[in-house]
Amino acid sequence: MRKVYLDNSATTSVLAEVREVMMPYLGESFGNPSSLHDWGDSPREALEAAREQVAQLIGAKAEEIIFTASGTESNNFAVKGMALAQQSKGKHLVISDIEHFSVMHSARTLEKLGFELTLVPVDKYGLVDPEDVRRAIRKDTVLVSVMHANGEVGAVQPIAEIARITKEHNIPFHTDAVATAGTIPVDVKQLGVDALSLAASQFYGPKGAGALWLRRGVRIMPLLDGGVQEGGRRAGTENVPAIAGMGKAAELARLHLDERMRKLTVLRNRLLVELPAAIGHVAVTGHTEQRLPGHASFCVEFIEGESMLMMLNSKGVAVSSGSSCTSRALKASHVLLAMGLSHELAQGSILFTLGIDNTAEDINYVIEVMPSIVDRLRQMSPLYAKFTRAGKGGS
Amino acid sequence: MRKVYLDNSATTSVLAEVREVMMPYLGESFGNPSSLHDWGDSPREALEAAREQVAQLIGAKAEEIIFTASGTESNNFAVKGMALAQQSKGKHLVISDIEHFSVMHSARTLEKLGFELTLVPVDKYGLVDPEDVRRAIRKDTVLVSVMHANGEVGAVQPIAEIARITKEHNIPFHTDAVATAGTIPVDVKQLGVDALSLAASQFYGPKGAGALWLRRGVRIMPLLDGGVQEGGRRAGTENVPAIAGMGKAAELARLHLDERMRKLTVLRNRLLVELPAAIGHVAVTGHTEQRLPGHASFCVEFIEGESMLMMLNSKGVAVSSGSSCTSRALKASHVLLAMGLSHELAQGSILFTLGIDNTAEDINYVIEVMPSIVDRLRQMSPLYAKFTRAGKGGS
Repeated sequence: MRKVYLDNSATTSVLAEVREVMMPYLGESFGNPSSLHDWGDSPREALEAAREQVAQLIGAKAEEIIFTASGTESNNFAVKGMALAQQSKGKHLVISDIEHFSVMHSARTLEKLGFELTLVPVDKYGLVDPEDVRRAIRKDTVLVSVMHANGEVGAVQPIAEIARITKEHNIPFHTDAVATAGTIPVDVKQLGVDALSLAASQFYGPKGAGALWLRRGVRIMPLLDGGVQEGGRRAGTENVPAIAGMGKAAELARLHLDERMRKLTVLRNRLLVELPAAIGHVAVTGHTEQRLPGHASFCVEFIEGESMLMMLNSKGVAVSSGSSCTSRALKASHVLLAMGLSHELAQGSILFTLGIDNTAEDINYVIEVMPSIVDRLRQMSPLYAKFTRAGKGGS
Repeated sequence: MRKVYLDNSATTSVLAEVREVMMPYLGESFGNPSSLHDWGDSPREALEAAREQVAQLIGAKAEEIIFTASGTESNNFAVKGMALAQQSKGKHLVISDIEHFSVMHSARTLEKLGFELTLVPVDKYGLVDPEDVRRAIRKDTVLVSVMHANGEVGAVQPIAEIARITKEHNIPFHTDAVATAGTIPVDVKQLGVDALSLAASQFYGPKGAGALWLRRGVRIMPLLDGGVQEGGRRAGTENVPAIAGMGKAAELARLHLDERMRKLTVLRNRLLVELPAAIGHVAVTGHTEQRLPGHASFCVEFIEGESMLMMLNSKGVAVSSGSSCTSRALKASHVLLAMGLSHELAQGSILFTLGIDNTAEDINYVIEVMPSIVDRLRQMSPLYAKFTRAGKGGS
């Protein structure tokens, strides 16, 4: 059976070149980068080379990159660390309604510590209106965090416009760029943000490596206290192999960004156009233009995303129905609900996230198998029975 | 030149069997363990197998193991998470004076959040008197944290005795077992603790994998908020390769614990006895019996640990002069000062931590090169010149 992986928002594969770069640090170059003797040299050089590579990917300075163990850690570090470092100035946060749970729940934790939180809404495409951010800002606002793109609906937010507003008010602005860094152009100067999270496992790097870019001068309280690693801002022995891999993955992403984007956009557009034509009663979620290149997301009427996922799996196709971090929680996506979709429709969420190894044949295959899957599930659907009995016809 | 790595407290090497177990998850089994489709299966099974292996190493139940990215993260998670989860009951913590900075500085961060902290002293061997813990406990104490063994002086603490006291008072007790788990027998039931930190890179596993064992029913606030990974207690895509490697390393440590301990103790004892005889004016730090098997630490009079480290390095030998997490801070060890050593003597700290690959020849080599290194440094030492002028003679 054909095997088609279309769940790159959950995690990408690891490129062979990336794996190769990691190997010495799992072998003879196993030393601790903090060691003063020779065994520390090669691991330390690997860290600094990776720091340079990651910095280049986002147009930043190497010394402003703090390595973490995941995008989730970067987001927790940014939101909690920046808010707590400034709590003497105020205790109000602004985030969007569709943040990843690592931002959303970090903000909720801060609420328990006495902070107040304003959630900025999104429109039906999942886009934030910068003017809504302006309206949310108060005198005691100490942090704004709006994601660069949402992994569930692919909507790319107007970060630079929001940054202009936060700058006017002199409020630090963090963006979760886990879904965009290494996937579309991300330049911290163009975006105008003060902090930016990224994760290697979203751009063909290994799991276990993330980074927070923090503009020089922006205050942050460490999330991980201890040793003096990462300039005293993030303690713990560095995961050298994973960080080295992240560096290589960042370099490759930078060098191949345009060609990857072109390829993915072509394949993705076929899905966005051909899938609705093939199955009917389906809505594209997110924006058609302001959208991640490999990202095609839908809500299919009358049936559940989980069931489609399972049946696609039995045909060798991997997809998601919402964020991988919540896939085992089986709740309707907070992102889709924030976009104004009904609970019912949100349950029909299905998400194809393409990767650089996907081919036109992969897309053909999906478009070929989807109609029979949808038909079969609709046959079993009480909602669909009710709909057809009402005389509105089939798909 | 002979290459002799004697800095296993900074990090161990990674065993070939461990590296091998990791490889599939950097290759075709790259999936996200949270994925509902087939790509999630093998990574998820790897996590659960590793959880079982780590649990067996410490006599625990698999479901009580929470994977983290480092020993530092485990310690931050335990100290901050357990204290914050119970802050309605009280805001007082008890830790020892010689905790690793990941515990010490986590406690300091809690002070900033309104907690009070009592530091329990140690004796000249670096050992905590359990009765001092009893005296430090107050009505509002919500957490006691005392490390199982200190990586700098190798002293193994009377954890079971302390646990009897915390149990009487019904106070959760965490122990940092980063230096002991996988090195000496660690059984959570025998120790009687409620939470225990460990790290793979201390027992021939990879960097990037740690764990917190948390007794069922003990409350903790997550340090990393977000998705529902690790039972909702630690968010973030799991570092599957590193965790799989940690599992294998735990299994190997369990199977070979006795033989490793025997071998390391023999080699270590030679250092403890022969090195002082060879160089003179040197004090063993820590206890001779209650001591980690591969651990030999000294303070050499009149000279600096850093200088010895550098000269040993030029002879191909890797050692430490204090904790690797602070090695670049160049301050006298808080551990040695807490044991009552003078600043002057503490500066002469040198630490040999042996690993399973070390041989009798390695030890011969060190004992052979050390006297000339020490002599040369003493020739340059104003302290030594003062000492010899005072007529007290050379070594």
